[in-house]
Amino acid sequence: MHIGLVGLGKMGANMRSRLRAHGIEVTGYDRNPDVSDVPDLAALVAALPTTTTDGAPAPRVVWVMVPAGAPTRGVVSELGELLAPGDVVVEGGNSHYTDDLEHAAHLAERGVRYVDVGVSGGVWGAENGYGLMAGGDPDDVATLMPVFDALRPEGPRDEGFVHAGQVGAGHFAKMVHNGIEYGLMQAYAEGYELLTASDQVTDVAGTMKAWSRGTVVRSWLLDLLVAALEADPELGSIDDWVEDSGEGRWTVDEAIDRAVPLPVISAALFARFSSRQSASPALKAVAALRQQFGGHAVRPAEP
Amino acid sequence: MHIGLVGLGKMGANMRSRLRAHGIEVTGYDRNPDVSDVPDLAALVAALPTTTTDGAPAPRVVWVMVPAGAPTRGVVSELGELLAPGDVVVEGGNSHYTDDLEHAAHLAERGVRYVDVGVSGGVWGAENGYGLMAGGDPDDVATLMPVFDALRPEGPRDEGFVHAGQVGAGHFAKMVHNGIEYGLMQAYAEGYELLTASDQVTDVAGTMKAWSRGTVVRSWLLDLLVAALEADPELGSIDDWVEDSGEGRWTVDEAIDRAVPLPVISAALFARFSSRQSASPALKAVAALRQQFGGHAVRPAEP
Amino acid sequence: MHIGLVGLGKMGANMRSRLRAHGIEVTGYDRNPDVSDVPDLAALVAALPTTTTDGAPAPRVVWVMVPAGAPTRGVVSELGELLAPGDVVVEGGNSHYTDDLEHAAHLAERGVRYVDVGVSGGVWGAENGYGLMAGGDPDDVATLMPVFDALRPEGPRDEGFVHAGQVGAGHFAKMVHNGIEYGLMQAYAEGYELLTASDQVTDVAGTMKAWSRGTVVRSWLLDLLVAALEADPELGSIDDWVEDSGEGRWTVDEAIDRAVPLPVISAALFARFSSRQSASPALKAVAALRQQFGGHAVRPAEP
Amino acid sequence: MHIGLVGLGKMGANMRSRLRAHGIEVTGYDRNPDVSDVPDLAALVAALPTTTTDGAPAPRVVWVMVPAGAPTRGVVSELGELLAPGDVVVEGGNSHYTDDLEHAAHLAERGVRYVDVGVSGGVWGAENGYGLMAGGDPDDVATLMPVFDALRPEGPRDEGFVHAGQVGAGHFAKMVHNGIEYGLMQAYAEGYELLTASDQVTDVAGTMKAWSRGTVVRSWLLDLLVAALEADPELGSIDDWVEDSGEGRWTVDEAIDRAVPLPVISAALFARFSSRQSASPALKAVAALRQQFGGHAVRPAEP
Repeated sequence: MHIGLVGLGKMGANMRSRLRAHGIEVTGYDRNPDVSDVPDLAALVAALPTTTTDGAPAPRVVWVMVPAGAPTRGVVSELGELLAPGDVVVEGGNSHYTDDLEHAAHLAERGVRYVDVGVSGGVWGAENGYGLMAGGDPDDVATLMPVFDALRPEGPRDEGFVHAGQVGAGHFAKMVHNGIEYGLMQAYAEGYELLTASDQVTDVAGTMKAWSRGTVVRSWLLDLLVAALEADPELGSIDDWVEDSGEGRWTVDEAIDRAVPLPVISAALFARFSSRQSASPALKAVAALRQQFGGHAVRPAEP
Repeated sequence: MHIGLVGLGKMGANMRSRLRAHGIEVTGYDRNPDVSDVPDLAALVAALPTTTTDGAPAPRVVWVMVPAGAPTRGVVSELGELLAPGDVVVEGGNSHYTDDLEHAAHLAERGVRYVDVGVSGGVWGAENGYGLMAGGDPDDVATLMPVFDALRPEGPRDEGFVHAGQVGAGHFAKMVHNGIEYGLMQAYAEGYELLTASDQVTDVAGTMKAWSRGTVVRSWLLDLLVAALEADPELGSIDDWVEDSGEGRWTVDEAIDRAVPLPVISAALFARFSSRQSASPALKAVAALRQQFGGHAVRPAEP
Repeated sequence: MHIGLVGLGKMGANMRSRLRAHGIEVTGYDRNPDVSDVPDLAALVAALPTTTTDGAPAPRVVWVMVPAGAPTRGVVSELGELLAPGDVVVEGGNSHYTDDLEHAAHLAERGVRYVDVGVSGGVWGAENGYGLMAGGDPDDVATLMPVFDALRPEGPRDEGFVHAGQVGAGHFAKMVHNGIEYGLMQAYAEGYELLTASDQVTDVAGTMKAWSRGTVVRSWLLDLLVAALEADPELGSIDDWVEDSGEGRWTVDEAIDRAVPLPVISAALFARFSSRQSASPALKAVAALRQQFGGHAVRPAEP
Repeated sequence: MHIGLVGLGKMGANMRSRLRAHGIEVTGYDRNPDVSDVPDLAALVAALPTTTTDGAPAPRVVWVMVPAGAPTRGVVSELGELLAPGDVVVEGGNSHYTDDLEHAAHLAERGVRYVDVGVSGGVWGAENGYGLMAGGDPDDVATLMPVFDALRPEGPRDEGFVHAGQVGAGHFAKMVHNGIEYGLMQAYAEGYELLTASDQVTDVAGTMKAWSRGTVVRSWLLDLLVAALEADPELGSIDDWVEDSGEGRWTVDEAIDRAVPLPVISAALFARFSSRQSASPALKAVAALRQQFGGHAVRPAEP
């Protein structure tokens, strides 16, 4: 099988490598000519076969792996012009699932098919394989199965791949996956902090490492935290400033829209927001209130 | 009526003034001789009458207003030596309610009575009167009613005073009052922060002031926040560093002990804890995790 | 002054009464002919004067008080057809502030002015006056000032009215007001629950009533809770099922969009979501997990 | 090596099996004579060797695996009477770490040594091995190392065992481990609920199974949730009623004592509390408040 891949950043380039290593031919395009296989999208589409190796007609497949929002929208739109009815666009980036519905409707006007795929695994996916969640029509998902099998981890297919539902389901599933991830990370982090605050546990890094096998809390994220603590036992080199990629926000927004209580995931999200504040206006207000009613001292703001 | 008052700090001195202004005779004792009416506790007890003005026998009453914990325990213990059966010790400080049970049992060995009173109102209580919550035997509470009536605000008695239950009930009620206070303050503070973060509302202080009358959120705490914002519209002079007095912690501890969910009050307490951290070990751990799995950049710690 | 008022439901009818009682002439329109002063919107507009009482030209003013979303959109659109350049539409319902921007742009095409007003006070506003937050151009707000003065509570204008900013600011301020309200209510409610769970406090309703004066937590919401407890001391007649009107959700959505942490307001919102679930899928999952790893008993679902 | 084991319930019996399978001789005692190897604690102690197999003097070792609190205290105390200086008591149950300090001090009066061990792994530990966290003196821990090696999982020692610190450190570490576990479980559970609430994802169980490999959220707890969903895809047989064992409460109490913010772990704990309420007094109060200020309908309590 031979597919096109648009976007050769860290994730895209890794995926191209893994696909090629697993027998999928890939023509890649990136705005950066140093890493691109072709000069433009038109050339990418032109490079893709319209038949299988034994001559049967086959749809062209272009996997899009560029930043969500305007960049993805632009590429999808341009592919709509270049592809023919029956061809398939796969959006493997981090689009919001509602964007998928718009992309699919837009392409459907020209008969072009659309599948959205949530891709998990970070920088480790190139080696370990990627967890994949796909949304789309069953026929289109079937067309793409060789690609999915190349990308997903070794092992039973259903432990690393799911056809989660219609268009949008892949990114919805990935969004929830990331929301869970926020909660898991914060849970480990809170436990780590309490250990560091204790007088009892004198080997915090060793304690967390000892949870790697046999315990209820063992996980890949724990393994990563152990690795981080082995490299820097007191995390002295790292600031407590945590970005959020947007999918945590989407998860909470979605839950609010559906009246689903998410106390843990939202608390993890808010902890990140707080981590990026140099001063909290809210806590200034609380300090001001305490001064007003109780004459309690406040700390003057630093000059 | 003539009572003793131990502890003439900010609260105690204010209460002595209000009591005297409302016709209660007060002999005050403080370790600081500059403010004390008598040289020691023995002199304080000796100064108190054992009969009413018309000659009927009457218990002596000593109101204790010193810091919770060891100081209160010390004073209560010493009063146990000095007082006689039937006399009454009133603990008006911020003792944990379980301390009250110990104090009462200790004094009961010598026949001395004990009443605990939660006192709310801060520095404004001298002028406005104090909200009072009492715990103890009905007879003892009845004995003290002239004192309570002098301290509480004008208006119907039951809007500023309650006999909440047996010994411990007064401080239990005050503890919960303070827990609620944490939640209320944080609610206003979060709203304030969101207003300041908006592009829409250009007059934040004026908006909160406009909530003073007619709205659902009007309250005394709101009035205080409005006063603070009038004095310093952007709270630029105040650091976002908020102490906690202990009663918020007790409230959450108590709720956990009784399996009562307190999501709002605990969130308000944790926000204060966070406000006092120069760096959050937990968020360092989250940052480290993101770096591990995603190759996401971390901010190096500041030197 | 003589204005039109569209929507004579509970809020609208109350406001018409208060306006008339304070010297504002009101022509009201409602789909329900039993309460309407005129048969349709055209008749309402026709009834409004285009000059002041001394003959100077004056804009017509129509206050809209119908449900947010499609109903408000429909009325605003129809008014755009009926009114003339310089006339003013006031949206006093619970629109999302982004709807205001659309309404204003739509009307501006025909030269019609737009002001949004957040109105707080519930069923008590008719008697006490309403807290008002306005968004719009200063000239339009000035035109409406007699109406605002009639609606707002007695007392200094700035304690019950604010011109919060440009179009949208009024409803943004009201949205935040309601978000705060969620947090305040939940804070009192958690304290109430902890009191009921205690062995110490035997007079829960009396304790909360005693907070009415002098204490730090005194507020109008507390007065209402005291009234509810006086009517039904154990709230035995009320189910623990709490609706949310939408403005709490908007508040949290907005905060997430602006990276403002709202732990307390979101916890209050989630508590309402949970209150409406007959069973929590999340807690079923936790129960299932405990059974899996620990062999802990689960409760079978009720048939 | 030959040790005594007190308590042959689910955990103790499993551990005896694993120890024997890994070459440790075990004499077990339980109050239930059907499972006990000896009639009483004295017989258990008498059965233990005081020399190594090559004749060198060796301390006797008794591992205690009974419920925390009074049962553990009773057994430890009785062992203090029966053992000799240099012998070692190992507390492997779920004691609070402050109990360990008391146990150790009590035994130290007679020269008996004490080591506390947090044991994780649930019913799967018999097969997979147990994660172990030990607190105590290095010499005592060294004495016990063959026992720890038999109990812990295959693999490098430091991935399933840690000497976390002095007496108390083992149970402190286990307490934090369990607190983290609460947060992890609730994070997965919230994600599960949001998936079930979505229209997009039509294969919820399959989606979570697809996270088993390659994804960031893969873990043993996820594997268990997948197993539960395979057995009962909609968890229809399970009630949303979740017990808490006490260690989650201890974790939050400890954090409050040390001013460590734990928003996620506390939210997970409170969700369990809520799950066990037939009606929430707090939400009744919120419903009552809404009725008071807005005339909003409340649901009458069910008869």
